[in-house]
Amino acid sequence: MGKKRLFLINGPNLNMLGKREPDTYGHETLEDVTKVVKDTAWEHGYEVEAFQSNHEGDLVDKVQLAEGEAAGIVINPAAYTHTSIALRDAVSAINPPVVEIHISNVHNRESFRHTSMLAPVCAGQVVGFGIDGYRLATLGVIQKIEREGRNDS
Amino acid sequence: MGKKRLFLINGPNLNMLGKREPDTYGHETLEDVTKVVKDTAWEHGYEVEAFQSNHEGDLVDKVQLAEGEAAGIVINPAAYTHTSIALRDAVSAINPPVVEIHISNVHNRESFRHTSMLAPVCAGQVVGFGIDGYRLATLGVIQKIEREGRNDS
Amino acid sequence: MGKKRLFLINGPNLNMLGKREPDTYGHETLEDVTKVVKDTAWEHGYEVEAFQSNHEGDLVDKVQLAEGEAAGIVINPAAYTHTSIALRDAVSAINPPVVEIHISNVHNRESFRHTSMLAPVCAGQVVGFGIDGYRLATLGVIQKIEREGRNDS
Amino acid sequence: MGKKRLFLINGPNLNMLGKREPDTYGHETLEDVTKVVKDTAWEHGYEVEAFQSNHEGDLVDKVQLAEGEAAGIVINPAAYTHTSIALRDAVSAINPPVVEIHISNVHNRESFRHTSMLAPVCAGQVVGFGIDGYRLATLGVIQKIEREGRNDS
Amino acid sequence: MGKKRLFLINGPNLNMLGKREPDTYGHETLEDVTKVVKDTAWEHGYEVEAFQSNHEGDLVDKVQLAEGEAAGIVINPAAYTHTSIALRDAVSAINPPVVEIHISNVHNRESFRHTSMLAPVCAGQVVGFGIDGYRLATLGVIQKIEREGRNDS
Amino acid sequence: MGKKRLFLINGPNLNMLGKREPDTYGHETLEDVTKVVKDTAWEHGYEVEAFQSNHEGDLVDKVQLAEGEAAGIVINPAAYTHTSIALRDAVSAINPPVVEIHISNVHNRESFRHTSMLAPVCAGQVVGFGIDGYRLATLGVIQKIEREGRNDS
Amino acid sequence: MGKKRLFLINGPNLNMLGKREPDTYGHETLEDVTKVVKDTAWEHGYEVEAFQSNHEGDLVDKVQLAEGEAAGIVINPAAYTHTSIALRDAVSAINPPVVEIHISNVHNRESFRHTSMLAPVCAGQVVGFGIDGYRLATLGVIQKIEREGRNDS
Amino acid sequence: MGKKRLFLINGPNLNMLGKREPDTYGHETLEDVTKVVKDTAWEHGYEVEAFQSNHEGDLVDKVQLAEGEAAGIVINPAAYTHTSIALRDAVSAINPPVVEIHISNVHNRESFRHTSMLAPVCAGQVVGFGIDGYRLATLGVIQKIEREGRNDS
Amino acid sequence: MGKKRLFLINGPNLNMLGKREPDTYGHETLEDVTKVVKDTAWEHGYEVEAFQSNHEGDLVDKVQLAEGEAAGIVINPAAYTHTSIALRDAVSAINPPVVEIHISNVHNRESFRHTSMLAPVCAGQVVGFGIDGYRLATLGVIQKIEREGRNDS
Amino acid sequence: MGKKRLFLINGPNLNMLGKREPDTYGHETLEDVTKVVKDTAWEHGYEVEAFQSNHEGDLVDKVQLAEGEAAGIVINPAAYTHTSIALRDAVSAINPPVVEIHISNVHNRESFRHTSMLAPVCAGQVVGFGIDGYRLATLGVIQKIEREGRNDS
Amino acid sequence: MGKKRLFLINGPNLNMLGKREPDTYGHETLEDVTKVVKDTAWEHGYEVEAFQSNHEGDLVDKVQLAEGEAAGIVINPAAYTHTSIALRDAVSAINPPVVEIHISNVHNRESFRHTSMLAPVCAGQVVGFGIDGYRLATLGVIQKIEREGRNDS
Amino acid sequence: MGKKRLFLINGPNLNMLGKREPDTYGHETLEDVTKVVKDTAWEHGYEVEAFQSNHEGDLVDKVQLAEGEAAGIVINPAAYTHTSIALRDAVSAINPPVVEIHISNVHNRESFRHTSMLAPVCAGQVVGFGIDGYRLATLGVIQKIEREGRNDS
Repeated sequence: MGKKRLFLINGPNLNMLGKREPDTYGHETLEDVTKVVKDTAWEHGYEVEAFQSNHEGDLVDKVQLAEGEAAGIVINPAAYTHTSIALRDAVSAINPPVVEIHISNVHNRESFRHTSMLAPVCAGQVVGFGIDGYRLATLGVIQKIEREGRNDS
Repeated sequence: MGKKRLFLINGPNLNMLGKREPDTYGHETLEDVTKVVKDTAWEHGYEVEAFQSNHEGDLVDKVQLAEGEAAGIVINPAAYTHTSIALRDAVSAINPPVVEIHISNVHNRESFRHTSMLAPVCAGQVVGFGIDGYRLATLGVIQKIEREGRNDS
Repeated sequence: MGKKRLFLINGPNLNMLGKREPDTYGHETLEDVTKVVKDTAWEHGYEVEAFQSNHEGDLVDKVQLAEGEAAGIVINPAAYTHTSIALRDAVSAINPPVVEIHISNVHNRESFRHTSMLAPVCAGQVVGFGIDGYRLATLGVIQKIEREGRNDS
Repeated sequence: MGKKRLFLINGPNLNMLGKREPDTYGHETLEDVTKVVKDTAWEHGYEVEAFQSNHEGDLVDKVQLAEGEAAGIVINPAAYTHTSIALRDAVSAINPPVVEIHISNVHNRESFRHTSMLAPVCAGQVVGFGIDGYRLATLGVIQKIEREGRNDS
Repeated sequence: MGKKRLFLINGPNLNMLGKREPDTYGHETLEDVTKVVKDTAWEHGYEVEAFQSNHEGDLVDKVQLAEGEAAGIVINPAAYTHTSIALRDAVSAINPPVVEIHISNVHNRESFRHTSMLAPVCAGQVVGFGIDGYRLATLGVIQKIEREGRNDS
Repeated sequence: MGKKRLFLINGPNLNMLGKREPDTYGHETLEDVTKVVKDTAWEHGYEVEAFQSNHEGDLVDKVQLAEGEAAGIVINPAAYTHTSIALRDAVSAINPPVVEIHISNVHNRESFRHTSMLAPVCAGQVVGFGIDGYRLATLGVIQKIEREGRNDS
Repeated sequence: MGKKRLFLINGPNLNMLGKREPDTYGHETLEDVTKVVKDTAWEHGYEVEAFQSNHEGDLVDKVQLAEGEAAGIVINPAAYTHTSIALRDAVSAINPPVVEIHISNVHNRESFRHTSMLAPVCAGQVVGFGIDGYRLATLGVIQKIEREGRNDS
Repeated sequence: MGKKRLFLINGPNLNMLGKREPDTYGHETLEDVTKVVKDTAWEHGYEVEAFQSNHEGDLVDKVQLAEGEAAGIVINPAAYTHTSIALRDAVSAINPPVVEIHISNVHNRESFRHTSMLAPVCAGQVVGFGIDGYRLATLGVIQKIEREGRNDS
Repeated sequence: MGKKRLFLINGPNLNMLGKREPDTYGHETLEDVTKVVKDTAWEHGYEVEAFQSNHEGDLVDKVQLAEGEAAGIVINPAAYTHTSIALRDAVSAINPPVVEIHISNVHNRESFRHTSMLAPVCAGQVVGFGIDGYRLATLGVIQKIEREGRNDS
Repeated sequence: MGKKRLFLINGPNLNMLGKREPDTYGHETLEDVTKVVKDTAWEHGYEVEAFQSNHEGDLVDKVQLAEGEAAGIVINPAAYTHTSIALRDAVSAINPPVVEIHISNVHNRESFRHTSMLAPVCAGQVVGFGIDGYRLATLGVIQKIEREGRNDS
Repeated sequence: MGKKRLFLINGPNLNMLGKREPDTYGHETLEDVTKVVKDTAWEHGYEVEAFQSNHEGDLVDKVQLAEGEAAGIVINPAAYTHTSIALRDAVSAINPPVVEIHISNVHNRESFRHTSMLAPVCAGQVVGFGIDGYRLATLGVIQKIEREGRNDS
Repeated sequence: MGKKRLFLINGPNLNMLGKREPDTYGHETLEDVTKVVKDTAWEHGYEVEAFQSNHEGDLVDKVQLAEGEAAGIVINPAAYTHTSIALRDAVSAINPPVVEIHISNVHNRESFRHTSMLAPVCAGQVVGFGIDGYRLATLGVIQKIEREGRNDS
């Protein structure tokens, strides 16, 4: 049987990663991010479907699709982190665990970046480790999946 | 002459109705909702065009289309209720009356669900009756339409 | 056997309906309101006992009496909507469903009218349909009663 | 023809005037207050009906009665000044001008006494002159009545 | 000479004690409360006059009567705790010590129950001991009375 | 011996009275205001020195001069009402009583006009009677002066 | 068999009781407090271990020790009442009931003393009775222990 | 060589310009706006690519495209002005200067329209000049481009 | 006939322009600003009277003088932007259109610079274009004058 | 050469882990936590010194000691997360990277647990993965150390 | 060569020092203050130019003059401390160090006196030492001047 | 007879002075601070006992010891300035004057450093002069001691 699947969902402006404000976000690109997640997942027996959009509705659609298609989600909601109740409701509406990741330390940036609408409904949160954070988030979501799997049996 | 038309507009995540958090939203689906609205409208001489989207922009587009195409709107803006100034501006920009409906009692949920950006510009609001609320909202928008019709003549 | 009974409870200054600020409240009187509710209830097999008072304590007394004497309540708490914890506690303390109704769209009036102490403990809320809203509220409370009746059996 | 009538309405705990906290309220009693208002009114051709109650509903009832029975109201809403939307709505609902009076300077007492629910709908406000303030308030309401009378003719 | 008198004053909805929300308030009734207070008072040479009302004005009237008729007050202002400036002013206006009692732990309920308008002018406050709290409050008010008596002599 | 003196102090933009926003301020001019105050004062044995400035510092200078030169002050601080701690400190620093007057009902205008920095240190406040309010304020300050005079003797 | 044990825990600066601000705290010392609690407990079959510290961590350590060593706690957290989440978490983490006591009426002191981090997780709260409050708190915690004991059996 | 290019980006509901609330927005249409910008740009040697969408994500996509394709942007983000962190991040991520324009004076409309998420990262802001504001904004962005060009050389 | 006149009014500390904080305000002086405005105005048939003061009262006096002496005002109220209700009232009291200009982007400076007391009563606002903004503001006020002139005729 | 050292610092009440509120914190103890961190560190060539205290000052002392003695810190500040400026200053004062870990999802607990005084000065944050989070935090701090090491060379 | 010069600038109402509210400000006058500063300065080789005004604009003018004329400023901005952004901007705009002094402990007076608009841009602040504070402030500004002088050389 | 004694109390992280964030705190160490205070005190006939701790409880203990052992206190509470009610209560509980000193200008750092729990109960406050501030604070506390001594005799 094939590998289990994870969704890697990146929100608005992350397609510009590596080109934009390198002091804050570093020089690595979205392709580098995707590779980190895929490699980490592969070592633990998971494959990854990567998705990026600047559209809130597209992100909601994708999160909904995870129900049945993915064992877990690693999501960087970027700007929508702080305002999107729709994404929050989508995360609440599905069963697979969702882990929220932020590249920079949002807690020492503008105050409107200090709160996350998604955090209360996510399984876990990884903040401030640069793109290494994606590796930690991938490990985290896999731990969640496997621990819950053991609990079910 | 054909029947007058109502728009039934449902916002983000309502396509998952019946599958998602049944303690809050019950077991009925979006199809059940649509049927309730169509039946109620039909009895009063109206037909219904139903629309659902997870995209804020799609909902804005649809509300704008009501100008000239619909006599009134029943809308459940879901998560966008609390944040969308764009939807509010669209409702302000058109003439047909708009009635806002919420399935659950938003007033005893999280505090960010207590305020509605749309309520001040809607004709009326129906909250907390489960999907029965759609029937009340449909009756309400029809009353608004007919009462204004009488006023005009 | 006789009909089941509903309580229609109207709060402070609603005895002046039709005489007061017609731009906000219209020209219909409290008697018209009572008739709307009685007619709607009668069609569904309910009789209505109507009550109005400017005294918070009287309204609390009346809500308490509903336990055992009424199958449901339609209440317009008017000014007490926004401040009365006593009314809220009375609504919490009884079993019959209570539906809150406001004639005007309280959401586009002064900000102190935007919050309702009662809403979180009511079964549903109808706002902004003029006195037609009483018809919707009556239908709503009857739906609540009958649906719960079915659940109990 | 008889004299025109004013209502003098005093709110909760003002029946204890002169017995209670003389540092704040002085040694004069509610009877002294009534005499000041009656004397001032009499000199200008008005008679006065005085009323005091600790009950918010009684005060609302009395304000409503002014419609048709009084040419103007002098009211000291006392504690209800700061919380009663019901009194505010009653004042809005009638035509005779209403003047709000406070014996002590509410602005240098506890912060919850700094705001008045009634002030925005009253014709005028007199604060901090001790019971002399009742004389000023009576003069003020008479000026309002007569000036409006002149405007009407 | 007869016994000294205490007032036991219970506010809105406490007439429903034992019938209402037993998870929060337990199964004992207002009669049980009255008995606890009377028994405790009797052992220390006091008799008790018990009073309950859902009307804010009635509670204000009763507190005012304590001046001259009672040596102290045990009061559960219930819902009016959080909003009644009128009750606060009445407590300030009289000499006998007033002790505030709450059956449940108001501090872990809704945030609007966390503040008390009366607490700053009461002699003491007992919170969260169920109806046993009435016994503590009665002991507390008696200690206040006797300690002040000793100070006077 | 000559008459006792009052200061009439008017703040910024009141020199434009009668030309500016007549819906809010009426058609009477600053000269009319001065005449009302002088006439009222004269009847009670006082003369009036009138002063207007758009400069906060000038108003502070003038209030300070009242110490020794005036028996009392009638002041309309206009825009500086809401922001001037310097004026407040000047009023605190002198002995003659100061009465604050506002022509319009500041409580139903913009929220930044609802608070007064001066009110807590003034002897009294008259709000909303149009320029008639100047007559009431003049009577009020004279009552304050004479009542305090009697207390001293 | 020996007596059951209570912990009496007093927080920062209470070692200075009787020496410090007698207008607020009276002339009795921490030794007097301890005696009141020991005597009250002894009459009901309990012994008391008294502890005072100015160190938040010491108080947390002591509360943790109650698990297994004490049947209940009477605690005056003093200044840490308003800020210590660590003490709150310690109280949550143990089974014996904890009763919070304050000597003075914290509700009419500075606003930062109006909220208690501990109150939501304590069994009860006694405020404002001077050191007599310790007797009431001791009675209260014993009632809690015995009532729960009866429930267990 | 051809002209340099500007992007003119208009946000939600601006497609309804001229049809919607003419008291606020006037009678000119989006086509008129585009013509004003094109004419002004042309005179200074720039051509204009105009874009309108009701979708936040489309606007983000378009702003990103400016990197490399446009020398500057004139943007009216309409409703998204006040909520879109995604648009703000897009503006931050690109080099061409962005000028924000609002047709009406947003500062005397509802309070939620007083703050702009974009303003802190825009080069400049033009507010309240009707569609003439587009001409000013176009001149402003061209000045920014040319001044920076001079600085670079 | 002579040219029509504009007032150019600059507030506190703008006399130090070019000497003060060049990172924020650039190297150009108040004389440069005046020249920009005069040149722009001259091309459109207007002459300019320039005025600067550090005194709030002087600025109020000057704004009042515009009534009758100027066709429009370009004002940079500097520090008084955020606090001066007196300036706001002066702007409200006159007929000529007033345009507010800020050299730097006040929206990315300290939060107390984000709000403008004047903006709601000004005709338009230009922010963040350096001293080029004065040219845009001058064009803007001339457009306002001429458009209104056309409307009047 | 020996292994490099990490500090594992656990704050107040974490000594009770596994005994306290297992619904929130699970059944694993502080020893289990220490083992997870030691095993993870060992695999990457690090040894671990573990420390727990209920005393804020002890935690500050320990963080200061890391300067020179440790290559990085994994810290769970527990209750002090939300209030300790002293811990924050200690973290700022040292060079080794500090990673903050929380066992439970603090974002869906009480609101006072939503903010972290330490987060803005930490290198990264891991929230909500149960004790697995300690493994992720250990990996994260090691990545930080090694990445910075590479940057230095 | 002559002595270096300091400016001593005192704000509104400080001309009344010694006459006004001696409980708060003591019995010493502005002349005493000036002497303290002059004596302290003289001992360290500085002369002092003293200035007082009730006008915000005068104080701004004077602070600006310090550029070139004074080595440092000791300023008591009095009431303007809490509101004057213009003074703050003037202090920012000059190079000589400015030390802020308050006679009374502003932190235990009204809450609007707790914040200082100037403090963030001043070199230092001395609060609560009575007029002795002027001596400390003079010493402080001289230390600042000399230390910076040494740094420059 | 020996010299009178002062306490110099330094709070958390000040043991790292000179090693930590030199941009904010400079290069001088705690030993330098102690020397400044000892030298200044010695010249005025005082000896100094210096104490530093990272533990809030230790600082409270030390402040309490001043009663009887010290004539005055110079304290830099560092991080505990902003949160410690316990330190505030200790300062209130003793007679010797306490002067609060901050090395950096806390008013232009993070907003949580703008308020001081201790300031309202301290005799004076010195802010922003670097370690020179300790000299001013020492002079200040000695002035306070001597002035009070003179008042006593």
